[in-house]
Amino acid sequence: MSRIYATYFLETSQSLEHAASVIAGEQSCGTFITTPGETPELKERFGAKIERLEPIDKTTTPSLPGGKPGSTYYQATMTLSWPLENVGVNLPTLIATLLGNLFELSDHTGLKLLDITLPEEFSGRYPGPAFGISGTRTLTGVFQRPIIGTIIKPSVGLTPSATAELVQQLCDAGIDFIKDDELMADAPHSPLAERVERVMAVINSHAQKTGKKVMYAVNATDELDAMKRHHDVIVAHEGTCLMASLHSMGFAGLSALRKFSQLPIHGHRNGWGLYNRHPALGVSYVAWQKLWRLAGADHLHVNGLRNKFFESDASVASSLRAVLTPLFPDAPLAAMPVIASGQWAGQVPDTVNVAQSGDFMFVAGGGIIAHPGGPGAGVRSVIEAWEAAHQRISLPEYAKNHTALRQALETFGPTLVQ
Amino acid sequence: MSRIYATYFLETSQSLEHAASVIAGEQSCGTFITTPGETPELKERFGAKIERLEPIDKTTTPSLPGGKPGSTYYQATMTLSWPLENVGVNLPTLIATLLGNLFELSDHTGLKLLDITLPEEFSGRYPGPAFGISGTRTLTGVFQRPIIGTIIKPSVGLTPSATAELVQQLCDAGIDFIKDDELMADAPHSPLAERVERVMAVINSHAQKTGKKVMYAVNATDELDAMKRHHDVIVAHEGTCLMASLHSMGFAGLSALRKFSQLPIHGHRNGWGLYNRHPALGVSYVAWQKLWRLAGADHLHVNGLRNKFFESDASVASSLRAVLTPLFPDAPLAAMPVIASGQWAGQVPDTVNVAQSGDFMFVAGGGIIAHPGGPGAGVRSVIEAWEAAHQRISLPEYAKNHTALRQALETFGPTLVQ
Repeated sequence: MSRIYATYFLETSQSLEHAASVIAGEQSCGTFITTPGETPELKERFGAKIERLEPIDKTTTPSLPGGKPGSTYYQATMTLSWPLENVGVNLPTLIATLLGNLFELSDHTGLKLLDITLPEEFSGRYPGPAFGISGTRTLTGVFQRPIIGTIIKPSVGLTPSATAELVQQLCDAGIDFIKDDELMADAPHSPLAERVERVMAVINSHAQKTGKKVMYAVNATDELDAMKRHHDVIVAHEGTCLMASLHSMGFAGLSALRKFSQLPIHGHRNGWGLYNRHPALGVSYVAWQKLWRLAGADHLHVNGLRNKFFESDASVASSLRAVLTPLFPDAPLAAMPVIASGQWAGQVPDTVNVAQSGDFMFVAGGGIIAHPGGPGAGVRSVIEAWEAAHQRISLPEYAKNHTALRQALETFGPTLVQ
Repeated sequence: MSRIYATYFLETSQSLEHAASVIAGEQSCGTFITTPGETPELKERFGAKIERLEPIDKTTTPSLPGGKPGSTYYQATMTLSWPLENVGVNLPTLIATLLGNLFELSDHTGLKLLDITLPEEFSGRYPGPAFGISGTRTLTGVFQRPIIGTIIKPSVGLTPSATAELVQQLCDAGIDFIKDDELMADAPHSPLAERVERVMAVINSHAQKTGKKVMYAVNATDELDAMKRHHDVIVAHEGTCLMASLHSMGFAGLSALRKFSQLPIHGHRNGWGLYNRHPALGVSYVAWQKLWRLAGADHLHVNGLRNKFFESDASVASSLRAVLTPLFPDAPLAAMPVIASGQWAGQVPDTVNVAQSGDFMFVAGGGIIAHPGGPGAGVRSVIEAWEAAHQRISLPEYAKNHTALRQALETFGPTLVQ
């Protein structure tokens, strides 16, 4: 019998067993008074099971308010399991089971979903990313190193023609990948259809001249019917990628997009902090990215080492490794991790070290555009950093006879690397 | 020029002005190095504005980890505004603006979206609930009092025929509304099509005999193409409601459902705790419910007074009032608030007092099914509590010559009401 497993961080003033039982009951069969139909047989068959309850620590102050008070708060990792027949192979209902009412229970003072293991039946209904790592490499023509990207900046305000001019500079600079900002999709000052037309004209002409087709992730986040129109515009102009803000779409929304999209879906994780800023509340990225891969995201943002946000390098490393880990033994559902936020050549070696490969997109904004030698030197500096990492040569050493890297170290090194 | 306004709780170790500027910059035009296209004119036109920054309090311990440390943490309410042209009339992009990367910034140690005010342009593209309060009253035939509902329990495990038997008892009891549990939609042990067929046969036959059509909110949460099939099954069997777990659907998902649904959408908020368990992180229900009403939810769960979860009565009251408050002066987009969780007759008067009307669904599980006089007396006890509240008579007084209410007070009163 196939089962769904989920591991949580749990904190409670009560016994760990009691709190775990309440959570398991709430998320399978249970109400505040036992109802007539709730037989022992039914509870045995459909009840969630506590598979493991491993104490970690104790504390005297609760991590979250709203829980039953006590003098000691016990912390543990808890693994629950549900029979697949409770929910069926149904991602939206799975979400209600893994991440539903349980966060509201007063029987805990901390609850965070850390990881999930799904039965292979899910890979039947959910084929996952249509392009993933290999499809993205084929479309960009970049096979031997990380895909180097940048972001259209300023985030908001450029006209379609100003965007196209910027894209021309970036194409000339040798970039592999360009993305829109998440704050701007089909805005009045830059209607998507016009922006795509202008930008793709530049990209297609560059491809004709050089043989290199730059991938442009058009922010097409919108209502689904509008996204279908945006998608068709991108396809008509021979675009090769579409960006979607995951939390704006939702799981059902992203799955629906996956069904009609002929383009890789660049999954932007803005809003992630809402789920992860607190260590004792929410959903770890390790669990979260599995659900988005099931829904069909081809590229998944994982932040970057030494980023401009609050997230620690250990957390980023764990996210990066998670996206590269197969989801099922016979169906990896591999997605392409996207490194972004405060990135420049300096973080490349450590990133390669974590990924144990060059299978990631490395998206740098200022680190490329504000390079003192211009965007071309910005791109070169990242490639040189990759070459150094690949050959296990330190950046300062490699920079001795690589100008772009040396300039990057001189410009961004002192201020950005501690 | 139309603008979008959002008010946040903010906590920071830095100056409030600095933190607010960083957030405003991150969510409009900004990167860690000023890029060439970022002109003063562009910043002036597209930059988010700090409209108001009102200090509340100071503390010596940060509410959230990951922020820049300091000796004092300043708390404030902050109102930002954006020109509508930054995002256009686009709910999914609005989400990325209001609730995107800002939660990850290390320049704060607490950030929660408290409320939003949207320009009326939104009501043009987003017509909101198709049924709302009046449509739901018409479909149920209940006009003068709250709509009284209950939940199919046990949550998981009943066969379609066992569900239909239970529904028969509930119809006989005089119930107005019945909902599936959020944990079970189209599961192998209770396929939706078979469950709908069996249950609607009971409901339709009851309607033919009595003239009373019970509303059954079928949990149809699923992928969108499957939801369309589920929807059509419900319509074919003359069902009058469809339930969807909001967070499983996402905004784009719910909007798409709204476009094809001929049925009221019963919006279940499971997962709400994830966004609200921490007072200094997430999204208040007051802001959240506005977005779901725009997306088209007809019914919105608001928890209940003296509920079984962690939420305070003050918070529930604020949520209930929020759902009843018009969204735009010329377009109220009214949704029906749904009271649920640990409810029985006892909470009715206080709920009426908060709502200042009977415009809500009152969903009681054990409070109806486990009533000592049976489910019929359970329903009667809630109606009697409404009559008492409406006539401003205390429950114990009214119970003197109303048996069902008296039994409810005797049974649930001592354990459930403090």
